[in-house]
Amino acid sequence: MKIIVIGAAGTIGQALVKELASRHEIISAGRNSGDIQVDLTDAASIEKMYQQVGPVDAVISAAGNVHFGALNEMTAAEYAIGINDKLMGQVQLVLIGQKYLNDGGSFTLISGALTNDPIVYGSSVSMVNGGLEAFARAAAIELARGLRINVVSPTLLTESQESYGAYFRGFETVPAAKVARAFSKSVEGAQTGQIYQVL
Amino acid sequence: MKIIVIGAAGTIGQALVKELASRHEIISAGRNSGDIQVDLTDAASIEKMYQQVGPVDAVISAAGNVHFGALNEMTAAEYAIGINDKLMGQVQLVLIGQKYLNDGGSFTLISGALTNDPIVYGSSVSMVNGGLEAFARAAAIELARGLRINVVSPTLLTESQESYGAYFRGFETVPAAKVARAFSKSVEGAQTGQIYQVL
Repeated sequence: MKIIVIGAAGTIGQALVKELASRHEIISAGRNSGDIQVDLTDAASIEKMYQQVGPVDAVISAAGNVHFGALNEMTAAEYAIGINDKLMGQVQLVLIGQKYLNDGGSFTLISGALTNDPIVYGSSVSMVNGGLEAFARAAAIELARGLRINVVSPTLLTESQESYGAYFRGFETVPAAKVARAFSKSVEGAQTGQIYQVL
Repeated sequence: MKIIVIGAAGTIGQALVKELASRHEIISAGRNSGDIQVDLTDAASIEKMYQQVGPVDAVISAAGNVHFGALNEMTAAEYAIGINDKLMGQVQLVLIGQKYLNDGGSFTLISGALTNDPIVYGSSVSMVNGGLEAFARAAAIELARGLRINVVSPTLLTESQESYGAYFRGFETVPAAKVARAFSKSVEGAQTGQIYQVL
């Protein structure tokens, strides 16, 4: 398969490339790195990416910015960061990409455990993740030509515990390699409309 | 209790007023009707509503517009309708309202069954509902002064079956009076962070 991996330079992205590269042709994409540059907040940039890469069998996203902040301090503009990037950026990958994927191709997007298991300062992240997961369940029943869509919802990465562990006290962590296997299940399996929780 | 009901003129809103008016002081609000006019897409309008009404014990929302449309035809601008109105409009009721509610006050917002049970043309509605429910679970653990937040998630109303039933074939319906009891449970009970599914 020919697979675009968006966010390929990140911790999960690197694990994804390691998991999939021996079996598939990987096109790495990122805001500032990779084979192709793409900005999820810019529809023209997403359209250009698909035109440059040509027909593909799978699109994987392990990218998306969201603002963390206290509920009693955050502004609508700070919520808009996650809405425009991690939420609508990934939705746009599907809205635009449904024209470009080969028959039977798949979208695999990323949410996170905060959908159901919130932390302080995480209300925008929870909102974005919950919206994305519900979108994927709905999009799965409308996609044409056998196209599929799933979401991988990981908890805190073991690799990120040193940086972010203080915000996630008591949370179990998972290695990025385990998260990469959930993406593999989505891309190399045949399921659709699923949320793969990696907890 | 002094309770603001936003969307009081709608089918659920009318049932809410009927359920609550004998026990509480109701301030009805709506875009074009009610005691107070409020536009959920306009933060200044929400702030003005709270200033006009003064301290309240509960805010109920049974309002919010979302665009229905085919996944392969909908634009980002059409997704933005629901994001700015039903999603961020209700989030803004909380962000702004947390300064105005009396200690122990409650927010009760509205989502819908499409979060988990999608229909064709409903991807934006599912997204908005899923985002709102996850936001509420997260906001519940950060609200100060004993403030609470819950979401009521109704399926198709019996009263709306004639208008919208063709899009919801096979769905059970619920009367608005039953949905109103879920709002009563949220406002007059003590739970927080709950999604009350009325199916």
